[in-house]
Amino acid sequence: MTSNAVPECLIDGQPANQVRVTDRGLSYGDGLFETLRVSQGSIALIDYHLARLQRGIQALRLQADIELIAEEWRDLAARMGAGVIKLTLTRGSGQRGYAIPADVRTVRIQQCFPPANYPEAHAREGIRLFSCATRLAHQPLLAGIKHLNRLEQVLARSEWNDPQYAEGLVCDIQGLVVECTMSNLFARQDGIWLTPSLAQCGVSGVMREYLMNEMRAHGEQVEEVELQHSALLNASELFCCNSLFGVWPIIALDRHQWPVGPHSRYAQALAEQVIK
Amino acid sequence: MTSNAVPECLIDGQPANQVRVTDRGLSYGDGLFETLRVSQGSIALIDYHLARLQRGIQALRLQADIELIAEEWRDLAARMGAGVIKLTLTRGSGQRGYAIPADVRTVRIQQCFPPANYPEAHAREGIRLFSCATRLAHQPLLAGIKHLNRLEQVLARSEWNDPQYAEGLVCDIQGLVVECTMSNLFARQDGIWLTPSLAQCGVSGVMREYLMNEMRAHGEQVEEVELQHSALLNASELFCCNSLFGVWPIIALDRHQWPVGPHSRYAQALAEQVIK
Repeated sequence: MTSNAVPECLIDGQPANQVRVTDRGLSYGDGLFETLRVSQGSIALIDYHLARLQRGIQALRLQADIELIAEEWRDLAARMGAGVIKLTLTRGSGQRGYAIPADVRTVRIQQCFPPANYPEAHAREGIRLFSCATRLAHQPLLAGIKHLNRLEQVLARSEWNDPQYAEGLVCDIQGLVVECTMSNLFARQDGIWLTPSLAQCGVSGVMREYLMNEMRAHGEQVEEVELQHSALLNASELFCCNSLFGVWPIIALDRHQWPVGPHSRYAQALAEQVIK
Repeated sequence: MTSNAVPECLIDGQPANQVRVTDRGLSYGDGLFETLRVSQGSIALIDYHLARLQRGIQALRLQADIELIAEEWRDLAARMGAGVIKLTLTRGSGQRGYAIPADVRTVRIQQCFPPANYPEAHAREGIRLFSCATRLAHQPLLAGIKHLNRLEQVLARSEWNDPQYAEGLVCDIQGLVVECTMSNLFARQDGIWLTPSLAQCGVSGVMREYLMNEMRAHGEQVEEVELQHSALLNASELFCCNSLFGVWPIIALDRHQWPVGPHSRYAQALAEQVIK
């Protein structure tokens, strides 16, 4: 490996691709992850990723050197040029039992992947949403953060295989709309962008946060709300977003159809300013 | 290693102690575990463990050879004599994304530990319960099974360090009593054993199931109920149980105290018939 070659995976800074079976990330999902888009040698929305990671570290009371993580991200991004970095940060190794050992040491896994290859038509023409039956539980202690307990997302995503659906809509245990399996949701109604509150469940996506900030900075009204399914169906425009693909307009859900509207195109343009 | 030596860990039948960073057990907690008590060369409540594992396999739609797992358990138990086996069964390795790859292969991790060394006084004199503030979310799709998404238990167990508390009481998001962090709960009221329903959250412990069956077979009334915190405090006797330690009478919670009653001693005797 030359010094500029991109490693497949670094664990605590060293090339490696395995973790100990005693890692609490494996035993309990005791950790966090972040998935970063790298283009032109830099990371899109890095400050947003770092802020969410910091919130997760506090919620799980992990000990982690966030400066070191940021430095490693920037170094890997420069070497990769374009691609995806996935950080997995686990509590570290322990013996049996939920109690956190006094001498536990966080494990930092950085995986490098080629760029995500979603069909370009998703962004250009919009996507159809599958309606998932899996419901998200309410857990305010974990809501918003990107932790490793993701069985709900696995179950929701396993409900469909038909490639005509690029994403799936997921509601919470009360039937309120929350997000899609790997992205967040915006619905436009009466000239206002609505996005589901993530106080009880769901992942607070960095692209969602960036778009909320940018839209507001450009004079748009954006509200975090308890979004009823009926309000979703009455929306004039819908889109989903994440930091890898940017914005995908939503053109169909169940028997409802939407055109790709000008406000979704505007959101898309805002996303493209950072994901290039 | 001689053929009779006990391995620390087998992965898919081979001595190993690391898993790939792409394992979905690590990425998403996409898997199950079972913790087994081994004594006199055999596994306590093996049929109960196998039945719960089978329910988990169905709930997560895993592909697993449960006969092979049982065979490996019996073989390891015979070689260990006494100790603890922990099985972790993961979905296997995949690339990024929640979708389950078509060619995924379940990974079977069997770890062997020395016997659990809880103080004998816990069983003899009873224990004090810490009252955890962490609440369990309602998720009927995952309730009862022993999956790898255990952040709630990690958070609850991290609330206390004081060794005067051997276990912690955990309630659900509505304030109903569910279980302890690593064991199930029984409360005696008006001559009936009550144990919290696990339809919405919690782990269906094999010792709990065994005790319910045995008590009923011996003419005792046992009911699975929505257990209010107030009903718990009005109980005449309380105990917690799991398959490693059997039954621990509960003698204190907050400012309430209980004696170790005869019915808890009877439950303890039933447990001792299988954990020896």
